[in-house]
Amino acid sequence: MNKALDFAALNYDRFLSELIEFCKIPSVSADKNRISDMKTCAKWISDALKGVGFQHVHINETKGHPIITGEIKATKGAPTILIYGHYDVQPEDPIELWQTPPFSPVIKNEKIYCRGSSDDKGQLFIHLKAIESWMKAEGSLPVGVKVLFEGEEEIGSANLQPFIKINHKQLAADCVLVSDTGMYAPGLPTITYGLRGICYVQVDMKAAATDLHSGSYGGAVANPCNILATLIASAKDKNQKIRIPGFYDDVIPVTAKESKNIAGLKYNEKNFLKSIGAPEVYGEKGYTTLERLWCRPTFEVNGIWGGYTGEGSKTVLPSEAHAKISMRLVPNQNPEKIAKQFKKFIETNAPKSVTMKMTGLHGGFPFLTPLDNPFLSAAGKSLKDAFKTKNVAFIREGGSIPIVVDFANILKAPVVLMGFGLATDMAHAPNENFDLKNFRSGIDAVIRFFQEASGLKKK
Amino acid sequence: MNKALDFAALNYDRFLSELIEFCKIPSVSADKNRISDMKTCAKWISDALKGVGFQHVHINETKGHPIITGEIKATKGAPTILIYGHYDVQPEDPIELWQTPPFSPVIKNEKIYCRGSSDDKGQLFIHLKAIESWMKAEGSLPVGVKVLFEGEEEIGSANLQPFIKINHKQLAADCVLVSDTGMYAPGLPTITYGLRGICYVQVDMKAAATDLHSGSYGGAVANPCNILATLIASAKDKNQKIRIPGFYDDVIPVTAKESKNIAGLKYNEKNFLKSIGAPEVYGEKGYTTLERLWCRPTFEVNGIWGGYTGEGSKTVLPSEAHAKISMRLVPNQNPEKIAKQFKKFIETNAPKSVTMKMTGLHGGFPFLTPLDNPFLSAAGKSLKDAFKTKNVAFIREGGSIPIVVDFANILKAPVVLMGFGLATDMAHAPNENFDLKNFRSGIDAVIRFFQEASGLKKK
Repeated sequence: MNKALDFAALNYDRFLSELIEFCKIPSVSADKNRISDMKTCAKWISDALKGVGFQHVHINETKGHPIITGEIKATKGAPTILIYGHYDVQPEDPIELWQTPPFSPVIKNEKIYCRGSSDDKGQLFIHLKAIESWMKAEGSLPVGVKVLFEGEEEIGSANLQPFIKINHKQLAADCVLVSDTGMYAPGLPTITYGLRGICYVQVDMKAAATDLHSGSYGGAVANPCNILATLIASAKDKNQKIRIPGFYDDVIPVTAKESKNIAGLKYNEKNFLKSIGAPEVYGEKGYTTLERLWCRPTFEVNGIWGGYTGEGSKTVLPSEAHAKISMRLVPNQNPEKIAKQFKKFIETNAPKSVTMKMTGLHGGFPFLTPLDNPFLSAAGKSLKDAFKTKNVAFIREGGSIPIVVDFANILKAPVVLMGFGLATDMAHAPNENFDLKNFRSGIDAVIRFFQEASGLKKK
Repeated sequence: MNKALDFAALNYDRFLSELIEFCKIPSVSADKNRISDMKTCAKWISDALKGVGFQHVHINETKGHPIITGEIKATKGAPTILIYGHYDVQPEDPIELWQTPPFSPVIKNEKIYCRGSSDDKGQLFIHLKAIESWMKAEGSLPVGVKVLFEGEEEIGSANLQPFIKINHKQLAADCVLVSDTGMYAPGLPTITYGLRGICYVQVDMKAAATDLHSGSYGGAVANPCNILATLIASAKDKNQKIRIPGFYDDVIPVTAKESKNIAGLKYNEKNFLKSIGAPEVYGEKGYTTLERLWCRPTFEVNGIWGGYTGEGSKTVLPSEAHAKISMRLVPNQNPEKIAKQFKKFIETNAPKSVTMKMTGLHGGFPFLTPLDNPFLSAAGKSLKDAFKTKNVAFIREGGSIPIVVDFANILKAPVVLMGFGLATDMAHAPNENFDLKNFRSGIDAVIRFFQEASGLKKK
């Protein structure tokens, strides 16, 4: 391994100039005028893979942009790591807010500025260069490696799940490694081991056939706005515990160990409140802010509307009321089961004086790699050694990354989210950048991870 | 009185042809191109008043359309009745839905079809012809009469309250008689003795400075849509009783006598539900539908909005939520006091994690003439005799008529709402019409009312 580390250190400048070439390709998946740039980018990666010794390198056509796969077989007994990344980037708009052109990478203050530098080309490239370092310096990898690089992450990954389903045997691995998340703080290497899922529904409620005069009818006819508000209110108790029967049945409780780990993270509530401009935090009793965000399910109105919403007053008794409601789910909640429970809850609690329809809009499973998973521990040790820090942050995230769930559920492999992005990277925004310290230490960490993982048991 | 009744019967055809002339004038107060028609109409009425012996007939200019006043003094000891009506009418749009031109009155099936026939020219004219009948047949009236005819009822009566305030001495009366309401059923003469008031507010709530990602922030930051829903829900208990402290303090309870009176009215719940297309009635426990509509206050959301309300799903944690809320009030609730109570209620119950603003949009007092008021009884007897019915319906209405409250509060006189409109009159709609049986019996009833009222005590 040391030779690989030395190789990486010696070749770092070349790696960086290659990254600059990679980033120059305007691989904006959303832009129909850049289909050929997408193809160029796919070809560029495929050539790079071949250059470091990958076999079976394929540019797999899809209904959208191609998916690139390749493999370096494991020596007998060693586990195989599937590495995921995406080569497509966000559109550069609004272009007038960029200080340097988005597809002309510039190095400044130990950062590379350009679209896609952090999300996700820089992070994808870390893996390529870690593999190259092993292959060129040691002649082989201590683990098997498969890669899966898609070109549609920024537009919803519509063709990825079907691809994984069809090719699950070819993609089979003992661990999935993804670098497309962030670090908890600058200088603090971070592994994300949990994500929330989601159950997003719309409720449409109706009472009378039309809006009515609130004077002539008010008090004797159901008001869907009041009733919907009451249903929403009744879904939580005063401690913000969700009252939908069965809702918590499958929730994995926060363990004392996890609670301690979370409490040990630097978290500044004042800064948190300042960043969102809110007067106070709010949430389920008995949990800290980070626990509420990462480990506990939610019941949130994403939108509500009904009746008169213009200027001034209109004395109308609304005929209809609508709400978009999403429940963020935690392991092992099931979005379909939760949708059924919620439907039953509103049907049980709504009066007969209204009719109601619930439509499922979106569902996604939560994700968790148990904290004691050995690949997670191996990744943690690699990061600590590479970044030369005392600690590695093990965090969850409140949002969802559907493809991560697909990896976990379809490939039945633990997923390690080893993210090198920073909050200041401006991903999706003008002046996106990637910290070169993280690029350099990232390569180091992945080199180490292959070594650490090589001794772990295959599935 | 019998001579006056005979005179009316003999002259009915002439009365009707005069009403046709009156209705031909397109006195649409909302139409800026018809200001001269409004003046013509005011002059027409003023001439008619002079013709039947009114003194001090004035066309009082206002910032809008003129108000007509006139008087026939009471003989010593007799009470004075102030008669209110309005000579302006609604616009005729959509004109293509009229079967005959809106300002070319047509008699068909014992009805007169034209804009304003029911609302309110036909009803106003009943009073003029009742007075004429007395004056021409008997040489005098048994009571004093003052008239107050405005030309801005259909556009909000903005200039009427100031006029009443300034001229309250000139307008002083022992009873105010208004014919601008409806009959409970065809053939059933009706007196409206109560109206609800209103307290209409808007609540604007805010948590974070901007909308946030519901995954990254959901569960730890206040969601104004959920919180506003909870506040709305908490304003009523499960029996639909309003929980705002002090809310019912000034409510005059429904007496057993009134409850019996209301129960005696023909009310068909099936028809009621069919007319509004609702599956079931809904409201405060312990009260009938009519009691809920007429005698009990409400708490209704007139409009609610916040967050994402477009197609599909957006995983947003809304920054703001808004609701328009109105409370229909019953005697003797005070809209300003209720607004203060509600403000205190939401301030007490909202968490500190949101900021909130309540804006009063509209307020109006409720109105009640006690059922045992002698002018009300006199009106009831007159209607019964004129319509030759066993019963007179004494009803309240769920809506508000601000000018009625002004009469009651500024002139401190009982207001008798003797309405001759029918639900089928199509007031405000195409093909407005007025039932000629009601026109004829209405004149008869008002002739009788003057007689019945003449013996009543002055204030």
